Amino acid sequence: MAEPGTATGLLGILGGMGPLAGAAFAARLVALTPAARDQDHVPALLCNDPRVPDRSSARLGQGPDPLEAMLASLRLLERAGAELIAIPCNTAHLWYEQMAARTQVPLLHIVQAVCDDLERLGARGPVGLMGTPATLKLGLYQQPLRERGYEVLVPDDAGVAQCVEAIAAVKANRPEDAFAPAADCIRGLRARGARSVVLGCTELPLALPHERRAGFDLVLTDSIDALARAALAHYGRIAPHRRSDPAIA
Amino acid sequence: MAEPGTATGLLGILGGMGPLAGAAFAARLVALTPAARDQDHVPALLCNDPRVPDRSSARLGQGPDPLEAMLASLRLLERAGAELIAIPCNTAHLWYEQMAARTQVPLLHIVQAVCDDLERLGARGPVGLMGTPATLKLGLYQQPLRERGYEVLVPDDAGVAQCVEAIAAVKANRPEDAFAPAADCIRGLRARGARSVVLGCTELPLALPHERRAGFDLVLTDSIDALARAALAHYGRIAPHRRSDPAIA
Repeated sequence: MAEPGTATGLLGILGGMGPLAGAAFAARLVALTPAARDQDHVPALLCNDPRVPDRSSARLGQGPDPLEAMLASLRLLERAGAELIAIPCNTAHLWYEQMAARTQVPLLHIVQAVCDDLERLGARGPVGLMGTPATLKLGLYQQPLRERGYEVLVPDDAGVAQCVEAIAAVKANRPEDAFAPAADCIRGLRARGARSVVLGCTELPLALPHERRAGFDLVLTDSIDALARAALAHYGRIAPHRRSDPAIA
Repeated sequence: MAEPGTATGLLGILGGMGPLAGAAFAARLVALTPAARDQDHVPALLCNDPRVPDRSSARLGQGPDPLEAMLASLRLLERAGAELIAIPCNTAHLWYEQMAARTQVPLLHIVQAVCDDLERLGARGPVGLMGTPATLKLGLYQQPLRERGYEVLVPDDAGVAQCVEAIAAVKANRPEDAFAPAADCIRGLRARGARSVVLGCTELPLALPHERRAGFDLVLTDSIDALARAALAHYGRIAPHRRSDPAIA
């Protein structure tokens, strides 16, 4: 892969974190592609192996390190011929540099994809963040958003608890229990002045079905869809947000 | 993989036919698993390469043969370590014996999985069939259903056209246009006496969202879910319908 718009081979997807998010990414990649028949879609290979140790626990010093398991799946994708890799897990991007250093294939960066998506959506004003405790605490999004000129609002303790509850419900196959806490967190950020909110954990879009997102009176950017759009731009299926290949860090 | 319930390694998924059905299979595999956390799910590898020539056209003598493309994806899954393979495309099973003869890894059979699912659901009386023209014309389901004691109703010309319209709308990313023709076909089969209907093309479950299936007053068996259940039984995640490993032909 040299330039955006020129990819033609397999898109590798390092999924499993969680597995429903991995599958949802594969589905949204298809749904967001302008296509009239099967053969128009991007060829993809999804490694949806959920045996990766929990990323959030590891990063907060409470569990085993997931890096080796993620590298094993990356190697599988590389050996199978992936020419570009997407990782539909925000927390996993806390290991982005370590993964990129040990992988031959370019890795899309979900945070850059989300920042591009905010610009595509014309977001103005303070940006509220949602995500896992590790993502929020270790500042995965804060600096990149500030570099794009956005003021960043991090959830308070109640908001973090709402994120945790929504994410856990999705991971436990109870998406119907995930909507209320996720919606409460969005409303809390809105009340504090957020004009847009980043769904910065790939379980959160699954907590908030697309058809129920209209009522929040702000811009929502969805890290699954943003990453899918970044991948599709590399395959020339949609126009890139910018010409300078920003989605690879 | 020796006995049902003993699989532990990667489940290979030969997808791409179509790509939304492949992704939906990966998602339903997760959603149907009793699980409280990521690590409880079946590790899966989805090869979602849609560049396989159209199966229905080929089988009706109107297009190139897809066998070599399917074998290439099967080899990719084998090399990556798959210990069992599911193929979420009904029409592709017209090549089942040729694929099984050239693959070391056991292949689940979607028709056997659907027949098991009908029994699990307690279906009685005539079974209506929906699917691609090739699946219907070449009798993929008819004989196996008769062997299980079911009378089989095949759609009339209008019903076949409704199937074709629904499948094409899903493949063209217009699922909202797929419901009406699919529903009309079900109602037509019901009027002719069907007490259950097989959604025998993996685009058809995507035409009929789960929450809109209650109104048909018959048993619907969904070939995506049936195949996912067959896979989960092999991994001991759900009870198998029978003890005799019927889902591999």
